Amino acid sequence: MTAPLVISIDAMGGDHGPSVVIPGLAESVALLGRPVRFLLHGEAMALQAALETSPQLRAVAEIRAADSVIEMGAKPAHAMRRGKGSSMWNAVESVRSGEAKAVVSAGNTGALMAISRLILRMTSDLERPALVANWPTLEGFTSVLDVGANVVCDAERLLEFGILGSAYHRAAHGVERPRIGLLNVGVEHDKGHEEVRDADRLFRTPGLDINYLGFVEGDDIAKGSVDVVVTDGFTGNVALKTAEGLARFFRAELRKTLSANALAMAGAFVASGALKKMSARLNPSTINGSPFLGLNGVVVKSHGSADAAGIAHAVRLAVNLASSDILSEVAETLARRPKLTAVGGSESLGA
Amino acid sequence: MTAPLVISIDAMGGDHGPSVVIPGLAESVALLGRPVRFLLHGEAMALQAALETSPQLRAVAEIRAADSVIEMGAKPAHAMRRGKGSSMWNAVESVRSGEAKAVVSAGNTGALMAISRLILRMTSDLERPALVANWPTLEGFTSVLDVGANVVCDAERLLEFGILGSAYHRAAHGVERPRIGLLNVGVEHDKGHEEVRDADRLFRTPGLDINYLGFVEGDDIAKGSVDVVVTDGFTGNVALKTAEGLARFFRAELRKTLSANALAMAGAFVASGALKKMSARLNPSTINGSPFLGLNGVVVKSHGSADAAGIAHAVRLAVNLASSDILSEVAETLARRPKLTAVGGSESLGA
Repeated sequence: MTAPLVISIDAMGGDHGPSVVIPGLAESVALLGRPVRFLLHGEAMALQAALETSPQLRAVAEIRAADSVIEMGAKPAHAMRRGKGSSMWNAVESVRSGEAKAVVSAGNTGALMAISRLILRMTSDLERPALVANWPTLEGFTSVLDVGANVVCDAERLLEFGILGSAYHRAAHGVERPRIGLLNVGVEHDKGHEEVRDADRLFRTPGLDINYLGFVEGDDIAKGSVDVVVTDGFTGNVALKTAEGLARFFRAELRKTLSANALAMAGAFVASGALKKMSARLNPSTINGSPFLGLNGVVVKSHGSADAAGIAHAVRLAVNLASSDILSEVAETLARRPKLTAVGGSESLGA
Repeated sequence: MTAPLVISIDAMGGDHGPSVVIPGLAESVALLGRPVRFLLHGEAMALQAALETSPQLRAVAEIRAADSVIEMGAKPAHAMRRGKGSSMWNAVESVRSGEAKAVVSAGNTGALMAISRLILRMTSDLERPALVANWPTLEGFTSVLDVGANVVCDAERLLEFGILGSAYHRAAHGVERPRIGLLNVGVEHDKGHEEVRDADRLFRTPGLDINYLGFVEGDDIAKGSVDVVVTDGFTGNVALKTAEGLARFFRAELRKTLSANALAMAGAFVASGALKKMSARLNPSTINGSPFLGLNGVVVKSHGSADAAGIAHAVRLAVNLASSDILSEVAETLARRPKLTAVGGSESLGA
């Protein structure tokens, strides 16, 4: 029998705290294909009460009392200085100490990133974790990174994202050799700015064991032309939020269309089964859970507004990552990566 | 009676040439609220034949024989060296000479931009035209610029885009004081990279008569939180193409959903009137036509693949711009714009 995988939970995180986190964990216990144990960090009384409703979860959960909770609006610097003893801090610490294999939190993103960097440290000489978006396509998912943590990126950072994203996509989605594309304004080699052109050359370094296909454009993300789309955190964040805005626009348009008149409403009623399935497939819950990549440990961030199904999805992602070789793989590929100077930076390029 | 407005047409441009351009012009004649005359630049025989089908258009069109046609795949540098006497070149030249008030071409984007810069020159000391996307929202349109012509932009360029976009949005969409937002990864003043933070300060210069609201995020584009969204050409191009990809994804999902089973198909049939209206509203034809802003003359680029309705829409946009004060307004506001050094660049900032 497999020993249970231990996952550490910031049970106080998110807009709704334990009232959503606990039902989410209960949902995940039933769904996960392997035994797990949860370390629930938070207010002991509140967690005990919440566990009453789910005997199945209570059997695999252990409450760890925390002194405080980091507010959703806290500044990262403040969280680092004053966060010791909080549910988030202790949840991350359980990974550092080796007690747990991964941590899930729906708390403040900046605080979780700052505390994770401080406690777990970055792998190799990476600077800051990369944030990944799981982008739905007709056939599956595209992993897009960075979507906001690293606003300014040089070519070497972009290469690191490719290495991190490739290992992530394999661990999360089971694709053996994920295809990597570098986001640009055209696919010809002379397109874009210096950073992407330099990164394109770094990605082509012989001996670097990754499946790099070259430049891709914005419309390739939803098309699924590649598995991993690499970009700087500014562009990635704008692309992600632009897409979120457009998705809301389409839902509103469709709602308006299907209630425009009696005939449209009747049609919508008749087709409601199929329409509900579509809306379930495109529900943000089914893509909830973003890892912070590049840390010495698995940290999964859930949306603050996630519902129970969303929490369950984030936990499943954490379990997939914790069961994989992602950390050692990333460390090994990073060790092989070239520096820009070694292959000739853009300054030494003619043209 | 108003004198007819003269519009110069590159009648050979686009994937389909005169076979779509001529029907598009015919469509526009019926729709425009004011008298127009067209100068049709291209192969005389082909244009004469095409005009046979539309006596109404023939009455207001004049054919100008051109020696050649610039290929859709031509390199801009080649087009500049060898383009003289081509339909595109002559069409732009008609604006420079004062014969026409605007030019419309569905030809090669890079070639049109290079030839327009060469013949018309930039206003003031601008470097390169800005490309605008007309982005549909629930209530109207957001003008997003730059979407690809200027890959690297400093703060002063971003300010110029705001000035150009504001004058454009007023002329194209009739909004008296368009609200301007600067695209960033958050709305707080310390978010983003140096260029957007510096540009934010430039936009706030007293005496600059524009309606600047501050930073906006990607989801504000489709929401219509502002009328004009300013960004560098790299980010804008990625956002636009990401949205195009997502729009295709949604259409495919909806098609799949509404043909998933007999009930869904029946519902779609009953609601087909409303669904067709939605698809017409979101048809790319209804947003075809992008101006090149910053030139001493009105140049409107149509998509190469536009249909007749799309061409008609681009012509209407050209007529709106040519009837407006956009050129003098832009020149006046540019003359008042501050330089970064005058308000203190980021190097002189503490923190």
